[in-house]
Amino acid sequence: MNERVAIKGYLTQCAELTETALKRSIPAVWDVPERLREAMLYSLEAGGKRLRPALILSAAEAVFGKTSAFNAALPVACAVEFIHTYSLIHDDLPAMDNDDFRRGKPTNHKVFGEAMAILAGDALLTHAFHLIPQAARQGGISAEVALAIVEDLARLAGAPGMVGGQVADMLGEQGITSISELEYIHLHKTSDLIVFSVTAGGRIGGATQKQIELLARFGRNIGLAFQIQDDILDLIGDEQKLGKKTNSDVQQNKVTYPYLIGLEESKAQVERLTQEAKSAVLEAGFQDPLRLLEIADYLVQRDH
Amino acid sequence: MNERVAIKGYLTQCAELTETALKRSIPAVWDVPERLREAMLYSLEAGGKRLRPALILSAAEAVFGKTSAFNAALPVACAVEFIHTYSLIHDDLPAMDNDDFRRGKPTNHKVFGEAMAILAGDALLTHAFHLIPQAARQGGISAEVALAIVEDLARLAGAPGMVGGQVADMLGEQGITSISELEYIHLHKTSDLIVFSVTAGGRIGGATQKQIELLARFGRNIGLAFQIQDDILDLIGDEQKLGKKTNSDVQQNKVTYPYLIGLEESKAQVERLTQEAKSAVLEAGFQDPLRLLEIADYLVQRDH
Repeated sequence: MNERVAIKGYLTQCAELTETALKRSIPAVWDVPERLREAMLYSLEAGGKRLRPALILSAAEAVFGKTSAFNAALPVACAVEFIHTYSLIHDDLPAMDNDDFRRGKPTNHKVFGEAMAILAGDALLTHAFHLIPQAARQGGISAEVALAIVEDLARLAGAPGMVGGQVADMLGEQGITSISELEYIHLHKTSDLIVFSVTAGGRIGGATQKQIELLARFGRNIGLAFQIQDDILDLIGDEQKLGKKTNSDVQQNKVTYPYLIGLEESKAQVERLTQEAKSAVLEAGFQDPLRLLEIADYLVQRDH
Repeated sequence: MNERVAIKGYLTQCAELTETALKRSIPAVWDVPERLREAMLYSLEAGGKRLRPALILSAAEAVFGKTSAFNAALPVACAVEFIHTYSLIHDDLPAMDNDDFRRGKPTNHKVFGEAMAILAGDALLTHAFHLIPQAARQGGISAEVALAIVEDLARLAGAPGMVGGQVADMLGEQGITSISELEYIHLHKTSDLIVFSVTAGGRIGGATQKQIELLARFGRNIGLAFQIQDDILDLIGDEQKLGKKTNSDVQQNKVTYPYLIGLEESKAQVERLTQEAKSAVLEAGFQDPLRLLEIADYLVQRDH
C-alpha cells in the first residue's frame, strides 16, 4: 500500500487486509465443535464496511507515519470486528430486536437456532480478547500497550460502554424525548467502539497520552456524526444504494435525530461534529493525519 | 490468614475475601444504566461455593509460599467468577436450559427479562477482561503475566474451552453413548475454568512453565473428578445437604458417568483422578502445596 490511493480505495484495501486476517483468526488446530465454528464464521464473514478495523489501521498509520504499523494492528482490527459481530448476533435475537435478516442474509439464529446464536456470540466476544495478546506475541507492541488495549476494549464494549448503550436503547424505546437521552445511547452504542478503534490504533502507533485523548475526541464525534447520518439516510436516502428500505425508522416509531431536531438541524449537526473531529486530529500533530481526516469527511458524504 | 485453619475454614476465608472484592469490582463512578448494574449484581452476589476463586488464591499461595500473593490474585479471582456467573445466566435462558430457579432464587431472566439477562451476561463476560489488567496496575504482577492470563482466559472460556463444551453438551443431548464424548463435554464445560484458575494462580505466584503445565494437569483431573462427584451426588446424595432434589439427572434422561459406567466404577474413577491430580502437584515442587492437596480431597469427600 505505497501508492496514495483515494479514500474509497484505501478503505477497500483496509477491508481486504481485514478479511484475510479474519479468515485466519480462529486457529485451525483448535478442537472446536464444527457447528460452533460455522456459526461464528457465518456472521463474521457476512461482510459489512469493516469501518472499525479501517479506523484502527488508519489511526496507527497517522501516529506512526507509515503503513508498516499495519502488521501489529491487524489482530486488534480483527478483535474489534469480533466484538461488533457478536453484538449484531445478540441484537438480532428474538428476545431483542427479533430480526430475520441482516445484510440480506438470514440472521444467525434463523440459520443455527437461538441457543447456538447466543453461544456463538459469547464465543466471538471472548475470542476478541485472545487476539489482542497475539499482537504483542508477534512482537509488534509491548505487553504494556497490549494490556492497555485489553482494558480499553473491556470498558468501551462493556457495561459502561456498548452494552450500556444497548440497555439504554432497550429501556428507552419510544420513551425518549430529549436529545441528551438519544445522545447517551448513540455515544455508547455506536461511538464507544469507534473510540476504541482509533485509540487502539493510536496506542499501536506509539501515541502520547495527550494524542490518545484527542483520538478519543475524534472518535466520539465521528461516531455520533455517523449515527446521525444513518438516521438521515434512512429518511432521505436512495434505497438502491442503501440496499435496504428507507423510512424504516418512521415505520418502527424509532426516535431519531431528524425526529427530535428536524432534518436541517440534523445535517448541520453532522457538519459541526465532523469539523470538531477534524480539529482534534489536527491539534494532535500526527506524522500523517490525512487518512483520518479523509475518513471523517467520507462518513458524512457517503450515500450508503 | 496466618493461622493454619482446616480446609473448610480456609475455603470460607477465600470465599469471604472474594465476596468483598466482588462488591467493589464494578467501579461505582461508572455511568452504567442502573437496571443493568442490578441485573449483573443480582447473579454475581447469588452465592455459590466460590470454588474457582479459592483455586486461584490457593495456587498462588502454593507457588509463592505465602498468602501475601492473595492481593494480586483477587482481581483475577473476581474475573473468573464473572465468567462463571455469565455462563450460568446464559445457560438458564429459555432458549438453553430454560431454568426458572438457581440456588433457590429466580433465575436472572425471570427477574429482569430475557433481553436484559442476555445483556447482563455479555457485560459480565466483558468485564472479566477489565479486571485482569487491574492486577497489573496495582503492581502485583507484570504486564507480561497479566497478558498471559488474559490469553489463557479467552482460550479456556471461549470456543475451544467452556463455550465449546456447552455447545457439545447441547448438540449431544441424549445422543451421547461413549465415555469419550461425555469426557469432552466435562473437560471443557467444567474443567477448563478450573484449569484457568489454578494456572492463573500459578502465574501470579511466579510459577515456571513446567509448574504451570503440572497445575493444568491438576486442574483437568480435579475438574473431571468434581463433575463425576456431582453426578454421583445427584444419584445417591442427601437432598437436605445438597439443597436440591436428587435423581434429577435420571428424570431428565441426562447421560452421566454412573449411567455410562456404573456407580462403583464412577467412584473409583473419582478416586483415580484425585490421586492423579495430587501427584501432579507433588511433582511440581511448590513452596507450600498443602492447600491444593487438601482441596483435591475436599472435592471428593464433600456431600453437597
